[in-house]
Amino acid sequence: MDKGVQTRDAILDTGVEVAFSVGLGGLTIGALAERRRMSKSGLFAHFRSKEALQLAVLERARETFTDLVLRPALAAPRGEPRLRELFERWLTYGSKRIPGVCLFVKAATEFDEQPGRLRDRLAENHQDMLDTIAQVCRTGVSAGHLRADTDAEQFAHDMYGVLLVFYLTDRLLDDPAAERRTRVAFDALLDAIRT
Amino acid sequence: MDKGVQTRDAILDTGVEVAFSVGLGGLTIGALAERRRMSKSGLFAHFRSKEALQLAVLERARETFTDLVLRPALAAPRGEPRLRELFERWLTYGSKRIPGVCLFVKAATEFDEQPGRLRDRLAENHQDMLDTIAQVCRTGVSAGHLRADTDAEQFAHDMYGVLLVFYLTDRLLDDPAAERRTRVAFDALLDAIRT
Repeated sequence: MDKGVQTRDAILDTGVEVAFSVGLGGLTIGALAERRRMSKSGLFAHFRSKEALQLAVLERARETFTDLVLRPALAAPRGEPRLRELFERWLTYGSKRIPGVCLFVKAATEFDEQPGRLRDRLAENHQDMLDTIAQVCRTGVSAGHLRADTDAEQFAHDMYGVLLVFYLTDRLLDDPAAERRTRVAFDALLDAIRT
Repeated sequence: MDKGVQTRDAILDTGVEVAFSVGLGGLTIGALAERRRMSKSGLFAHFRSKEALQLAVLERARETFTDLVLRPALAAPRGEPRLRELFERWLTYGSKRIPGVCLFVKAATEFDEQPGRLRDRLAENHQDMLDTIAQVCRTGVSAGHLRADTDAEQFAHDMYGVLLVFYLTDRLLDDPAAERRTRVAFDALLDAIRT
């Protein structure tokens, strides 16, 4: 890999960590320069504006989410195995608090009342993920694992809720039952649509 | 009501609005002074520190949530009607984007990685709400509306997820189906435990 790209990725990975800790709104060029022990002007030459940096960090998080969760899950056999793999990976890397996997949930509520490019990009990312879950759910119907009358968009919506409350109960509440309850909830969703 | 209390409440209501828009982390004494057209020193005399202001704003939001959602819901008949009232009120004031009702969901992900008094207080607020839902669920069991083997904590967990994904799909995604899907999900949860 090109040295410049490596440097940029390393800077952005630190940016994802900072954003995961204090929010994407708290991620400034100054704060990132301090963490990377770089000059502010050097970082400014890379990113030009706070918003450009935030968008680049979000994009880097999307790459991490794709590498750790999405791509391996989509390599699993169609239908229920693929749906389970998607759930398990999202849950696992969520419970490991991998910044790139977790940033989307955090940033969603942070920016929902702030119109602009960041909000637009976040909405696209979440809609893409909902669409992907619905699509994987449909492979379960065509594979005969799930009922023909399954509402795939409703399933995607419900599965999202199961993971959002996992983030809250595991992370904010440190609830030792968080993961077990999340699995019970996901199994109940699947049971309701299985053939 | 005492004039001083009225003034303080009005200041805090503006604080809730600011925090709802830019996050509790973005709520500074300076930002609030500007919005209220007050002197920074005057506000500082009221609250002493940014954290004290944030905690007071969170407490004010809790009062609003109690007044609009919790207290009226708990006045409904025990069991399923009370559970429905709780759900409907949370959903209604969430879709109306009432800052005091919505601040808790927003602040939960904002502070989950930032140890301190704000995070502790937020965790307490959310745990109280989960406990309340579980308690109302238990009244449904004793009233004979819900099955004796109902896991009230699991129900509370699941109902929370249903509302968290409503916030995401309604607010960030502007999904016109958000409310309908949220009702479908809640009804499915209730159907699964009804006698």
